[in-house]
Amino acid sequence: MVNHNRGLLIVISGPSGAGKGTICKELLEKNDNLFISVSATTRNPRAGEVDGVNYYFLDKDSFIQKIEAGDFLEHAEVYGNYYGTPKSKVEEMLLSGKDVILEIDIQGALKVKENSQEGIFVFILPPSMEELKKRIIKRGSETEESLMTRFKSAYQEINYVSTYNYAVVNDEVHEAVKKIESILTAERCRVDRIKENILDSKEGLIHEQLYD
Amino acid sequence: MVNHNRGLLIVISGPSGAGKGTICKELLEKNDNLFISVSATTRNPRAGEVDGVNYYFLDKDSFIQKIEAGDFLEHAEVYGNYYGTPKSKVEEMLLSGKDVILEIDIQGALKVKENSQEGIFVFILPPSMEELKKRIIKRGSETEESLMTRFKSAYQEINYVSTYNYAVVNDEVHEAVKKIESILTAERCRVDRIKENILDSKEGLIHEQLYD
Repeated sequence: MVNHNRGLLIVISGPSGAGKGTICKELLEKNDNLFISVSATTRNPRAGEVDGVNYYFLDKDSFIQKIEAGDFLEHAEVYGNYYGTPKSKVEEMLLSGKDVILEIDIQGALKVKENSQEGIFVFILPPSMEELKKRIIKRGSETEESLMTRFKSAYQEINYVSTYNYAVVNDEVHEAVKKIESILTAERCRVDRIKENILDSKEGLIHEQLYD
Repeated sequence: MVNHNRGLLIVISGPSGAGKGTICKELLEKNDNLFISVSATTRNPRAGEVDGVNYYFLDKDSFIQKIEAGDFLEHAEVYGNYYGTPKSKVEEMLLSGKDVILEIDIQGALKVKENSQEGIFVFILPPSMEELKKRIIKRGSETEESLMTRFKSAYQEINYVSTYNYAVVNDEVHEAVKKIESILTAERCRVDRIKENILDSKEGLIHEQLYD
């Protein structure tokens, strides 16, 4: 049974250079009931980083125990450090009715999809391939060959759009944010989410109005 | 292949007394690209009614021919007159990129669902069962028994919500309209609608940026 007071899990993902971070920042600023999932990591805290705010800082053993216990929606190892999305923390927020954003790369999103039935998967697209090219060049690639590699990677990544529910072009950040807000509003109206709620209040009618 | 310039077909339906008409009127006023499907009928035009605006007025033979040719998304006979939604007219608007509303009762919506793969089905709910009761009483039912029958009919009708994509509570008309507008925005971002479009522009990248 779907709990109709449960929050929404929204996965914001897409190729690097598409502008996921800027979009999530504005979404969070504008929506009081929206919270970002804080990742867990085994890397050392940097100056000013606070446990539970920037990351949940874990030692390697604890992290591996959590992997084995299935407590990550996704995790990855990058340069010898682990990073992951703690399932229990996300679940806690959703249960309390908060909407939760995961801002995540494509590989991570695919893993979340394997581990969660309820995510709303939004693929952020760069405004155009021309613009993506500019952004890739801007980030610096010295050789023609490495430029070629980056293009090919972007090309490959965009294929994954098929596994997402929605695609939003990040042409203008405000417009992209408004589209995602519309997606959240629409998802709250989806019958498969709120059917129980509607049918419950219908039962109310029968009892109160007909048989009392 | 999905044509990404094709308009959306949105079916606004629900039990009588839910306020479908008021919602559609405001939706049409606010959205320039949204058009309502004009029904065909065999009943005689009333004073001031214009063919093609209020209805397409057809004689009975033409109507029956069109039924047999499969040219109605749905049709029904009411007190000896036929009423129906002309498939070809709707198709014409969708092809030209217009979004089309069908404002229709539940039986009609179920028939449209059988005849069309692409409709977005929105069920309009009364604000509460208490409010529906008031509206039903207001419309006048003399006996306790007929009141009972009307309640039971509303009760049965709400079961059909399960076959719809979205449900919107008509608590406050402006809010309900905004929700439907969000649903339209979200549907335009659905990957299954725009995948071809995205992958086409990706092909553009490969040709222009990599191999030229």
